Amino acid sequence: MTDVETKSFPVEALCEFSTRMFLHFGVPKTDAMQAAEVLACADLRGIDSHGVARLRTYFEMLALGRINPGPQIKIVRSTLSTATVDGDNGLGLVVGPQSNRMAMDMAEKAGSGWVSVRNTNHYGIAGYYVLKALERDLIGWAMTNSTKLVAPLWGAERMLGTNPIAIAFPGKEEPPIVIDMATCAAAYGKIEMARRRGEKIPEGWSVDRQGHVTTKPDDMVNGGALLPLGSDRDRGGHKGYALAIMVDVLSGVLSGANWGPFTPPFALRQEIPKRSVGKGIGHFFGAMRIDGFMDGDSFKRQIDDYIRVFRATKPAPGTNGPLLPGDPEREMEEARRKKGVPLILPVVEELRDISQKTGIPFD
Amino acid sequence: MTDVETKSFPVEALCEFSTRMFLHFGVPKTDAMQAAEVLACADLRGIDSHGVARLRTYFEMLALGRINPGPQIKIVRSTLSTATVDGDNGLGLVVGPQSNRMAMDMAEKAGSGWVSVRNTNHYGIAGYYVLKALERDLIGWAMTNSTKLVAPLWGAERMLGTNPIAIAFPGKEEPPIVIDMATCAAAYGKIEMARRRGEKIPEGWSVDRQGHVTTKPDDMVNGGALLPLGSDRDRGGHKGYALAIMVDVLSGVLSGANWGPFTPPFALRQEIPKRSVGKGIGHFFGAMRIDGFMDGDSFKRQIDDYIRVFRATKPAPGTNGPLLPGDPEREMEEARRKKGVPLILPVVEELRDISQKTGIPFD
Repeated sequence: MTDVETKSFPVEALCEFSTRMFLHFGVPKTDAMQAAEVLACADLRGIDSHGVARLRTYFEMLALGRINPGPQIKIVRSTLSTATVDGDNGLGLVVGPQSNRMAMDMAEKAGSGWVSVRNTNHYGIAGYYVLKALERDLIGWAMTNSTKLVAPLWGAERMLGTNPIAIAFPGKEEPPIVIDMATCAAAYGKIEMARRRGEKIPEGWSVDRQGHVTTKPDDMVNGGALLPLGSDRDRGGHKGYALAIMVDVLSGVLSGANWGPFTPPFALRQEIPKRSVGKGIGHFFGAMRIDGFMDGDSFKRQIDDYIRVFRATKPAPGTNGPLLPGDPEREMEEARRKKGVPLILPVVEELRDISQKTGIPFD
Repeated sequence: MTDVETKSFPVEALCEFSTRMFLHFGVPKTDAMQAAEVLACADLRGIDSHGVARLRTYFEMLALGRINPGPQIKIVRSTLSTATVDGDNGLGLVVGPQSNRMAMDMAEKAGSGWVSVRNTNHYGIAGYYVLKALERDLIGWAMTNSTKLVAPLWGAERMLGTNPIAIAFPGKEEPPIVIDMATCAAAYGKIEMARRRGEKIPEGWSVDRQGHVTTKPDDMVNGGALLPLGSDRDRGGHKGYALAIMVDVLSGVLSGANWGPFTPPFALRQEIPKRSVGKGIGHFFGAMRIDGFMDGDSFKRQIDDYIRVFRATKPAPGTNGPLLPGDPEREMEEARRKKGVPLILPVVEELRDISQKTGIPFD
């Protein structure tokens, strides 16, 4: 991002603007604030592709009536520790947090809670949900499926989403370990960035439309596909592919949502799948009480110890040694809370355009 | 394996031999049969490193009193859907299956069950446990930590085990999807095989003792380390590292077992960690009722559809197209049930040696 021109905004201003945009479409106030909070979390943590950069898509989807601004979110089946939720085609930014709370409520009563969600839409960053679980002293899990971008190992077409997995563990004196990772080798955003700069991409990120390995970003964008984590057979591409299936089945199949290549896209310009095998996209949330397994304080002290032991690992040459998952995002959040969130100019233009169309003031 | 001389044995004969060896050390009959079943499962499915090839290590550990042949396995803490089990330093092949059954029993009552296990030992292949869950119409999860072999991304020393994750989903007419994967880029066994043959290993599998990328198997074996799934920063090595931490925390920290570089080895020749931070190694099991989320029959039909859709993926050039996770192991099992389990001659020699020392007949 350092070589791209940006303009910085206080996160509160972005949050206020997002909230008012959701309100503009009749989203209830609490829901609008909730949705804006999830977007702001992505912007603060440096996952720029999942913050206000998506606001135009939300705007378009709501304007066309493709998303229900006032969903009746329902539990359609449940046991003491599991549930399936139908999101009534609401914003994933609203259905997601509510379903996550259901998982946490169940965990507080039954030790753990597991919620599979259908008929929902893009829910922001998976990391948001597991951070919320930390606030309630729970170990949170979050997954979601998403529109096809990734080829299975040995496949020559897009069949799976970037299907992320998140989980977090709290420390006592140390900051938490926060895992939030897509199950593909590299993010689509990195391909786009290389394309803009006219640079090659590393081998192992993608294949072209014939399924050949490519280092040209254009080849991926024009009908090619991302590769799963592990990239090729030698380096474990079958494992990233398996993880993507795991996320897809838990989020999509188990809830009665669409799955695999039939998962609907979250953008107007993307092709709509020819077949429908369920309702909307799918999420999967889990929450576990730490003291359902061991004393909470002892666990956190062990995590402190864990973090310190891993920070003390002998560094590989040319590096400062291993980080802990969540370190870069936490540092980014600290900096951006002080200095504001830098947006690239095309995103600033999109927000100005929404401002003009809705009359909501911006900058 | 095709270029290595082997001798084949009916799986029943291997199972009988293993059972009698465990009985020889005072392991109760049911436990001895259980332990032999887990080993046979690995041999049938082609995970040769985890079958009777480990019998000599079990023999040595039991002979030296390092493993308790008659453990009092106890639940030390529980809620409706979670529990922590202390395996009393028993065989992982006995403690694992019993803890897995506890998770499944809880799931049948509370919708899901999650068990973290400490004070246990090597439990065979993670896949065994999720196959048992399929027999009870449950979605099973299994993880375990293990002795250090893997470097964190940007680290120059072994800090984590190969920490596998397994999960399985049943089909109705199609065979199940069975995921069972280590969280490192390549198995240690592959490095050993390349070493024996005097071949180079691909970049991305390991680093030498200074933390430099290496293609020489000797460099890894002599104090180097395996790399996590994703291999380097560009291809997502931080993700494989994060998954290994996830498995380690759920199995090791959450149960009160040892974790990270302090996880004890499962072999006499390996260095014993200088620090102890818990008891034994750790496992983590989960089980979820399918009908806690949706109708079981509908789920299985969707999985059938899922499998057929993925099999019909356009193949990458030079391949027959994507497999589904579990395909190679299932085909191997079918073949080996008919033709027997081929053992390499050094393993045959080890079994003969056990036979001589115990008087249990072999071949």
